Amino acid sequence: MHLLSDILGRPAAAIDTPALVIDLDAMERNLERMAAFAAQHDVMLRPHAKMHKSATLARLQMARGAVGVCVQKTSEAEALAALGVNNIYISNEVVSPFKLKRVVTVARELQALGGQLAIAVDSAEGLRRLAQAAHGQPAALLRVFIEIDVGHGRCGVAPGPAAVALADELAVHPALQFGGLQAYHGRAQHLRTVAERQAAIAQVITHVQTTRAALQAAGHAVPLVTGAGTGTFALETASGVYGELQAGSYLFMDRDYADNERDPAQPQFEHALFVKSQVMSVCASHAVVDAGHKSHAIDSGLPAVHGLALDYANGGDEHGILRGAQLPALGDTVWLIPGHCDPTINLHEHLLGVRGGLEHGTVEQIIRVDARGALT
Amino acid sequence: MHLLSDILGRPAAAIDTPALVIDLDAMERNLERMAAFAAQHDVMLRPHAKMHKSATLARLQMARGAVGVCVQKTSEAEALAALGVNNIYISNEVVSPFKLKRVVTVARELQALGGQLAIAVDSAEGLRRLAQAAHGQPAALLRVFIEIDVGHGRCGVAPGPAAVALADELAVHPALQFGGLQAYHGRAQHLRTVAERQAAIAQVITHVQTTRAALQAAGHAVPLVTGAGTGTFALETASGVYGELQAGSYLFMDRDYADNERDPAQPQFEHALFVKSQVMSVCASHAVVDAGHKSHAIDSGLPAVHGLALDYANGGDEHGILRGAQLPALGDTVWLIPGHCDPTINLHEHLLGVRGGLEHGTVEQIIRVDARGALT
Repeated sequence: MHLLSDILGRPAAAIDTPALVIDLDAMERNLERMAAFAAQHDVMLRPHAKMHKSATLARLQMARGAVGVCVQKTSEAEALAALGVNNIYISNEVVSPFKLKRVVTVARELQALGGQLAIAVDSAEGLRRLAQAAHGQPAALLRVFIEIDVGHGRCGVAPGPAAVALADELAVHPALQFGGLQAYHGRAQHLRTVAERQAAIAQVITHVQTTRAALQAAGHAVPLVTGAGTGTFALETASGVYGELQAGSYLFMDRDYADNERDPAQPQFEHALFVKSQVMSVCASHAVVDAGHKSHAIDSGLPAVHGLALDYANGGDEHGILRGAQLPALGDTVWLIPGHCDPTINLHEHLLGVRGGLEHGTVEQIIRVDARGALT
Repeated sequence: MHLLSDILGRPAAAIDTPALVIDLDAMERNLERMAAFAAQHDVMLRPHAKMHKSATLARLQMARGAVGVCVQKTSEAEALAALGVNNIYISNEVVSPFKLKRVVTVARELQALGGQLAIAVDSAEGLRRLAQAAHGQPAALLRVFIEIDVGHGRCGVAPGPAAVALADELAVHPALQFGGLQAYHGRAQHLRTVAERQAAIAQVITHVQTTRAALQAAGHAVPLVTGAGTGTFALETASGVYGELQAGSYLFMDRDYADNERDPAQPQFEHALFVKSQVMSVCASHAVVDAGHKSHAIDSGLPAVHGLALDYANGGDEHGILRGAQLPALGDTVWLIPGHCDPTINLHEHLLGVRGGLEHGTVEQIIRVDARGALT
């Protein structure tokens, strides 16, 4: 059996397939461009670590100015906290009493690391359960954001009075500190034209402003509005209402985000994440690569083929079917750009970081997907 | 941090969500029905372990008469061989010289365990590379099946003369033993009506018969034809041409296979694999569960909701949206039937086996997904 670490320092050509590979140069340019955007617009950046699930990449983002990271799951927070990431926001509801005990444990760990845990709520019952779990803990142990539904149609209370009722209840519990509003419109990220995204986010901003005004009128200061993703963050930023951006995919730019008409107000990001695959069968009509939907997620469509005029069709769990005027030969390498980076990374144990280009570069880094499969 | 083993012996109600749960009673009935079918029809069963990726389940199938298992990947063969599964068929092409060295290593391991490794080829170049890797190894170390394309349109040589050319070449290499034909029509498994599946498999049988006749005419005995899946295996069996069935999904029966019109010639299989999820948010129009497409694969469509009149809509990586006349309450458990079991299991580290029913049963077994993420 070969050792994973054997690949370090070797040419990218030696990477066994299929494998998930980072173009480190491209990733670092994306990192810098996003850091520069946040600095220039004086907005905080809290990238979503549900995308990469890696403490190494979370620390890299924080070293370039991010205030912390978001996660969706208690177990993701546990995995990153155990590796020293000290400022984490579970931007999602947790209602199981068993999980809420774990949330409080992580909050204590982050406090000991000099950081803080935050979490979202969207119901009186959820808040009651959270307060019960945190009862008797130090003051302001947990920062709590009230999630409002700004048009996504998933979680969140309706904008306006419902948020005020939750803020009233929150104020009663000393271990819980009102953090502000969670306001994220996921579907808006993937609207193809800039005009569609502008229209959707204009609605979002109205909902946030209405809710913030209602909270303020009821005597609740609103310390922060947090949200936004890679598709729209320039719009939330321009509104002046958002203090924190949760974009995550900018680091790797998947095929789906690249299909959006680009908003010139956003930095230009590059594809930095690839599935390396190999041609394992060829016939007159098509070639078959060894990467199917166990290698990359297809919830946002199929991967694009990098640098070659070939169409990728789904060939099942372990196969991809390539068609085009000029088919590759048996044994050839084909680089795929995943449709959606988040669930693709979750399929892999490691990301291999290549320096100096995919074709002629060298494997410089093995990045563990620390929270891989962290579902609970 | 809690220990996984803490869940053993506890009620299913205590399983944290989302989690992948086996109804052991239903699974064992499926196992028995398939074993009885194979025995009654005097056909060998070699279930596809790409479905469950578990040595425990492979051994369970072999204890009930299966001659071994199939896998798709070298690394799956390595993972199962390391746990003592001694009869494995890589029903897929391997063309990387690095991987082919590993294939030979596994073949030696299985030989030492009293079993044998088999593999598929579909090109002269692939066969040349395989022969080179096996050069100097003991006679008949590897059993080699020639894959023919019987209508699926993926891998495989064309039926007829191309297979004869490969068999001629195979005969030159003492370490390689001609096993027969690999003839699997994946898409036929999911044709909804029995009539459509009958028509597709009739074509398959014609291709196999033509190729077998051509091989025999050229002096090549054809020891075995192997293939078939959960959607069609009664048809391949009835043909009398197939000696071995590769069906895998029968063990768990996913939503997609259950959507097929049932062929009365096949045993009735039951759903035995479920995602346990929890309602984490409710509003007037819908409820949200904590299981999205990081919990279950959606390549074959969305999960069905077990036992409740609710529709599941995709809510992203970590959320599912339930709609229906009677919505569940915050904190309620909802059991989902995955669309496709193979890539769903690959998302999980463990399967929790429950005895005595999902609602009131007890966690009896923790089954590791040994070859999870085994992509190479």
